[in-house]
Amino acid sequence: MVKKERLVKNITAKSEDFSRWYTEVIRKAELADYAPIKGMMVIRPYGYAVWENIQKLMDKRIKETGHENAYFPMFIPESLLEKEAEHLEGFSPEVAWVTHGGNDELEERLAVRPTSEAIIGSMYSKWIKSYRDLPVLINQWANIVRWEKVTRPFLRTTEFLWQEGHTAHATAEEGQAETLKILDLYREFAETELAIPVISGEKTEKEKFAGAEMTYCIEALMTDGKALQMGTSHDLGQHFSKVFNIRFEDQDQQLQYAWQTSWGVSTRLVGAVVMAHGDDSGLRFPPRIAPLQVVIVPITIGEDWKETVLPVAQNTARILSEAGVRVKLDDREGFTPGWKFSEWEMRGVPLRLEIGPRDVKNHKTLAVRRDTREKQPLSLDNLAPQVQSLLDKIQQNLFDQALQFREDNTHEVEDYEEFKSVIEERRGFIKTFWCGGSECENRIKEETMATIRVVLMEADRTEASGSCICCGEQGRKQVYFARAY
Amino acid sequence: MVKKERLVKNITAKSEDFSRWYTEVIRKAELADYAPIKGMMVIRPYGYAVWENIQKLMDKRIKETGHENAYFPMFIPESLLEKEAEHLEGFSPEVAWVTHGGNDELEERLAVRPTSEAIIGSMYSKWIKSYRDLPVLINQWANIVRWEKVTRPFLRTTEFLWQEGHTAHATAEEGQAETLKILDLYREFAETELAIPVISGEKTEKEKFAGAEMTYCIEALMTDGKALQMGTSHDLGQHFSKVFNIRFEDQDQQLQYAWQTSWGVSTRLVGAVVMAHGDDSGLRFPPRIAPLQVVIVPITIGEDWKETVLPVAQNTARILSEAGVRVKLDDREGFTPGWKFSEWEMRGVPLRLEIGPRDVKNHKTLAVRRDTREKQPLSLDNLAPQVQSLLDKIQQNLFDQALQFREDNTHEVEDYEEFKSVIEERRGFIKTFWCGGSECENRIKEETMATIRVVLMEADRTEASGSCICCGEQGRKQVYFARAY
Repeated sequence: MVKKERLVKNITAKSEDFSRWYTEVIRKAELADYAPIKGMMVIRPYGYAVWENIQKLMDKRIKETGHENAYFPMFIPESLLEKEAEHLEGFSPEVAWVTHGGNDELEERLAVRPTSEAIIGSMYSKWIKSYRDLPVLINQWANIVRWEKVTRPFLRTTEFLWQEGHTAHATAEEGQAETLKILDLYREFAETELAIPVISGEKTEKEKFAGAEMTYCIEALMTDGKALQMGTSHDLGQHFSKVFNIRFEDQDQQLQYAWQTSWGVSTRLVGAVVMAHGDDSGLRFPPRIAPLQVVIVPITIGEDWKETVLPVAQNTARILSEAGVRVKLDDREGFTPGWKFSEWEMRGVPLRLEIGPRDVKNHKTLAVRRDTREKQPLSLDNLAPQVQSLLDKIQQNLFDQALQFREDNTHEVEDYEEFKSVIEERRGFIKTFWCGGSECENRIKEETMATIRVVLMEADRTEASGSCICCGEQGRKQVYFARAY
Repeated sequence: MVKKERLVKNITAKSEDFSRWYTEVIRKAELADYAPIKGMMVIRPYGYAVWENIQKLMDKRIKETGHENAYFPMFIPESLLEKEAEHLEGFSPEVAWVTHGGNDELEERLAVRPTSEAIIGSMYSKWIKSYRDLPVLINQWANIVRWEKVTRPFLRTTEFLWQEGHTAHATAEEGQAETLKILDLYREFAETELAIPVISGEKTEKEKFAGAEMTYCIEALMTDGKALQMGTSHDLGQHFSKVFNIRFEDQDQQLQYAWQTSWGVSTRLVGAVVMAHGDDSGLRFPPRIAPLQVVIVPITIGEDWKETVLPVAQNTARILSEAGVRVKLDDREGFTPGWKFSEWEMRGVPLRLEIGPRDVKNHKTLAVRRDTREKQPLSLDNLAPQVQSLLDKIQQNLFDQALQFREDNTHEVEDYEEFKSVIEERRGFIKTFWCGGSECENRIKEETMATIRVVLMEADRTEASGSCICCGEQGRKQVYFARAY
């Protein structure tokens, strides 16, 4: 039991120091490690498995909605990036530049892609000639580099992995519909697969993507009361198509600029799962994206456990694996069952099955839920459906808990003084009205560090209008404020 | 029919100019396009789908043999790369260097990974402490940059996609066994999934990976008689573990350096498929990795084809899709069936199903194989198993044809004069003996442009010894020579 105590002592409690807990649990659970380059991380197998599960489930949705994957170069010539001043200005402080190839200095610097609108736009101008070529619905899974000053594993790293969709359409309406379709796809994905309830809406002019007509996003509340942007969908209008000359002949033989969208989610989602569901003991993975859904711990009591308990544990692992459950049998020697319990709790495995000599006699196993710590014996007969049903319940419960947390931490306030004290003392979302002026937006950010996370779309507004929390002027922009990552 | 003629005219015949045929078919079939950066390409959806199929089938094998995926940073500090002189020297003419992040010059240049031994080695030295931590079996799917002077789509591009396995073991024997296990996995993969027969063996000292004890590879013969290296597996011994200080305490509490391996295949495999199976009319995809396995072309004769033929074609597409066949119904208007036939032939779809008014009456479809152009009517009853059986036959036939081609083009020669004339006039492999001296190896390369593709392993030798084709000295190195990509 010495080892167990050491392990538990080593993790800072989440309630004590959230930020330390976050980085500690990520390293101790072996999701990621720091790399020998400032701001970069190594995604270790246990963390990468989460990303693979996310990829698989997201890729399925992207393809089912008619998109195809492709791959574009990660280097973008400076002249191409410069074509769009607003876009370049938005990204240029964050661009890593390649200046030498082998022993030669390059004639032109190459940007390591901070996003791919420019390179993809230049190709679309070659491929799109007629309305018959539209829509173009392409997605890419790729690595991205943004030179960040302050970094944190998964949430903000110099290099990260993402998917970026880039589409082109024959009409503004189609482009807009695509943007909103993807926004809804992201919302449904976050809620179904990650068990994270999100709010969706528009970004303000100040917060939108450099070059977009409109940026939509999904935002979630982390358990420290800070908000996290989990995905964005941009209606690019004809902005980039005019810059990169993406023109098509419409049905009336008129030349038109294409309407475009772009949208993405990244490895940041792994950080979201950690922060939305974790507790003092460590991670709590939603079963649908958990690297391991079930861990089987044989109770190594008595001298003959290898003859009695182990074969039953092995058989149970095999049965579950064949039923499509991601299961691990932890039959390591030299570690007590108790040590293994706390190890796998810390690493967030949704369900633990204990099998001891008495269980073998009774043809049972003791199931322990990570989310509630509830224990219940399960018959070893017909085990897979019982396990699947428990995993479904855990998935639902994590979502319900996160939703409850968000509701408990979404505040309505009377005036700006109360706004300030709520943000400072209680964090969470503040749902209120805003006049739409950048003066108020900037003042609130400066004074409280809170930003407008979303401006609700008309259908989502719970009131038609209200007075701006800062200046008091009547406005129709119902918004969510929060301090954010 | 104007369009059909134009299409066919536009492709250079393979037999006429192989190199032009290759680049033309890749662009016209929309596998890839040139990017606005020298030596880089865009992998278009039709080409990327081939890579996705390769990834999926390869990833399964990599995981089934106990490996896990992870992700390491793509930037490697110059000082880390410099730690291993031989390795740096091998790659330094090909390294792209990042010198600026945002507006600031970096204190240390960062290499864009030309391969990941250095960055992964530096992490393994942190993770590996005890024999209990071994083996470490990690694979990564990533993009790689090598500044190439002469490039060709898929075969050699400045940026390419690959998987790279990096493992660490407690003994030399284990490392060696891993290297050979992967070599065999690659061979089986190439033959089963890509329908490309390969020879496997060792590289010579001159051709081996910078820093490896021994490099093994698989090599195939392309239909122009040149060889292509399709995958490599390196036994790294303790070379990198000594440089990066990857040490573990063994069971006797002694500190030991770990034994390592690394291995990879890349998007080059897509080029291999093109060159191994294509013909004068274009691509011929092996069904197991084809983006589309079946194309259904409705015969648009008569005014009522939309009421009669189209619903049957749609239903057929649905049935095949539900049975797991990658199928496309080409119901575009404004293109004749004949134009569609040659379009999908050029794009290499293994099987075409034609459905016309008469077929609908007879409840049949005409199946046309891409590999042999054989036609046979199939009943629309129970169609999926018939289609699957034809696809299996096509897969096997493509392999058989490639094997026959290789056998017909593997030459044994009497002397060096015959060697020279065979290489010049007939190409293909020359199977012979080599003394093992670099003088002969270099002279042959200079005089004939042929290199030693593999040195056969003992079990694969067909003769125990022979005289060197160059100097005549007796030797035990039975080798395959060829001009290569």
